[in-house]
Amino acid sequence: MTALRIGIDLGGSNLRIASLKSDSPALVEQHKEAVGEPRDPETLVGKIAALVERFAASTTEPTPVGIGIAAMLRDRRGTVANSPHLRWRDVPFGQLLAKRLGPRYTLGIYNDVNAIVYGEHAFGAAKGFRDVLGVYVGTGIGGGLIVNGALVEGATNCAAEIGHVKVRWDDDAAPCACGQRGCVEAYVGGSYVAKRIAAELAGGAASSAIELAGGVDRVTPSHVDEAAGQGDPWALGLWEELAPLLAVALGNAIAVLNPERLVLGGGLLGRTPTLYELVVTMLPLVAPVASMEPLSIAEAVLGDDAGIVGAAALAANDVSIIR
Amino acid sequence: MTALRIGIDLGGSNLRIASLKSDSPALVEQHKEAVGEPRDPETLVGKIAALVERFAASTTEPTPVGIGIAAMLRDRRGTVANSPHLRWRDVPFGQLLAKRLGPRYTLGIYNDVNAIVYGEHAFGAAKGFRDVLGVYVGTGIGGGLIVNGALVEGATNCAAEIGHVKVRWDDDAAPCACGQRGCVEAYVGGSYVAKRIAAELAGGAASSAIELAGGVDRVTPSHVDEAAGQGDPWALGLWEELAPLLAVALGNAIAVLNPERLVLGGGLLGRTPTLYELVVTMLPLVAPVASMEPLSIAEAVLGDDAGIVGAAALAANDVSIIR
Repeated sequence: MTALRIGIDLGGSNLRIASLKSDSPALVEQHKEAVGEPRDPETLVGKIAALVERFAASTTEPTPVGIGIAAMLRDRRGTVANSPHLRWRDVPFGQLLAKRLGPRYTLGIYNDVNAIVYGEHAFGAAKGFRDVLGVYVGTGIGGGLIVNGALVEGATNCAAEIGHVKVRWDDDAAPCACGQRGCVEAYVGGSYVAKRIAAELAGGAASSAIELAGGVDRVTPSHVDEAAGQGDPWALGLWEELAPLLAVALGNAIAVLNPERLVLGGGLLGRTPTLYELVVTMLPLVAPVASMEPLSIAEAVLGDDAGIVGAAALAANDVSIIR
Repeated sequence: MTALRIGIDLGGSNLRIASLKSDSPALVEQHKEAVGEPRDPETLVGKIAALVERFAASTTEPTPVGIGIAAMLRDRRGTVANSPHLRWRDVPFGQLLAKRLGPRYTLGIYNDVNAIVYGEHAFGAAKGFRDVLGVYVGTGIGGGLIVNGALVEGATNCAAEIGHVKVRWDDDAAPCACGQRGCVEAYVGGSYVAKRIAAELAGGAASSAIELAGGVDRVTPSHVDEAAGQGDPWALGLWEELAPLLAVALGNAIAVLNPERLVLGGGLLGRTPTLYELVVTMLPLVAPVASMEPLSIAEAVLGDDAGIVGAAALAANDVSIIR
């Protein structure tokens, strides 16, 4: 008999929960709802605990519960340092929920992208690889590291903050929402790319992306990518400016980590194949030759389920369980 | 009774060997000789094996032997991909030596800076810290990583190649001996700094460093550092150009790793306190705020013994033993 485990993805918009069996990434039972309002810790702790109890009702055995959360954590006990999406700051979320759930559940709280990368390691694009770097370019840029088969959490559970690697440090470096300047996210993160596209097109840049989108206000990074793939000079110019920044951030992390597998994904990079190819082509120019030798690169395959699958697997593997 | 272990430091100039006891970084017995010529693998394997047998003669017990080598390794079996110092390429050093030594010895071969950082972790400036980044700026720039208390070797034993992190990627980026461009080592590595100093002073730059050194041909980075500390404009200008490059390389590695402890050392950085201070002062501007919070910074303390101490400890802890 395969024991039950529970995975939860607590994002800024949606709360998803699923039960899984230990040998599979398939979701046995699942539920999704809007995080909604109010979204204070007490309300969400109550809501999540009730869902967990419902999903675990079929058994009385000890049950691992892993939660991936769109937040910067401060420790390995699920303390949320900061979550702009949830409007939380210094919230002992893990301890509140562990207390509410009681000892039957082994609870772990993880950064959402860490959980996603662990999911790909357990069941997806990085299965069987011992040393893995996963980087997701969506609205922002997040990452996750596996070393010797184990998730790297770092001293305060904020390892793999690859979005805040600096690619410029001159006075004109772009300001980032994190408060610093020159972060790779401030150039290649989806929300910055979208703003940049809108500003340049509103400023009169000519591009076939406008036609592809059916209007200047409707141009997404996907349209720009399609235009770049067709040789549109403005689109290609933008991608050729951004690709080296992401490639350098990745190449430098590869120099430090010497991973076997690089997994790339995310809402932006998953929909911009031309940009993806530019970045991958550039990588051997910036990462050390010896580090590129053992490296293979793959796109993420688990999609939206990766975070739930990974969080459940982390909790089941006893990673940073809150006691 | 404390079991004996043996540590070896195989550099480009010297071969050092020592015996140690398990609970101490003190060298019980030690020997140093020039690597000399010929330095082909067979000659050195014979020389090292004879020394090991001599140092282990007082016991008949199984004995761990760890070797730190100034080389890029290719795997966890001591295969040297490349060692310019020894003029070796694709040498199965670990397997040759393991065969020669026989089963009584548990042999491990490690990158020299990895061994040094592990030594500081076991007995020195990083003792008691679980997640450590060590960076040594000497002739070149090398590093070592400890995650969850274990050395990070990476897929092919070349993790922590922080010297080859790129800090420039434009067409004018400085060429590095590794064959790529824009590596931080090509700016801040000791041999490049020395060349830069010599070229600028030969080109007519005025600096009090010349007086401090007693002649334009005698100026070392230490003299430049002293001059910079006294406000010499040329010296300070040079340091203010180089410090951000090293700070960014460190800060980006910190963003990726979230270490508790940063250990800095090496023949250049150990003798340039003004440069050291500039780098450390700049770090909070380039590393994420959340990653700086748990981080403490310390200078390396074990000096020349660190590599021997670390290599012996790695072998004793069964890290990448060659079987």
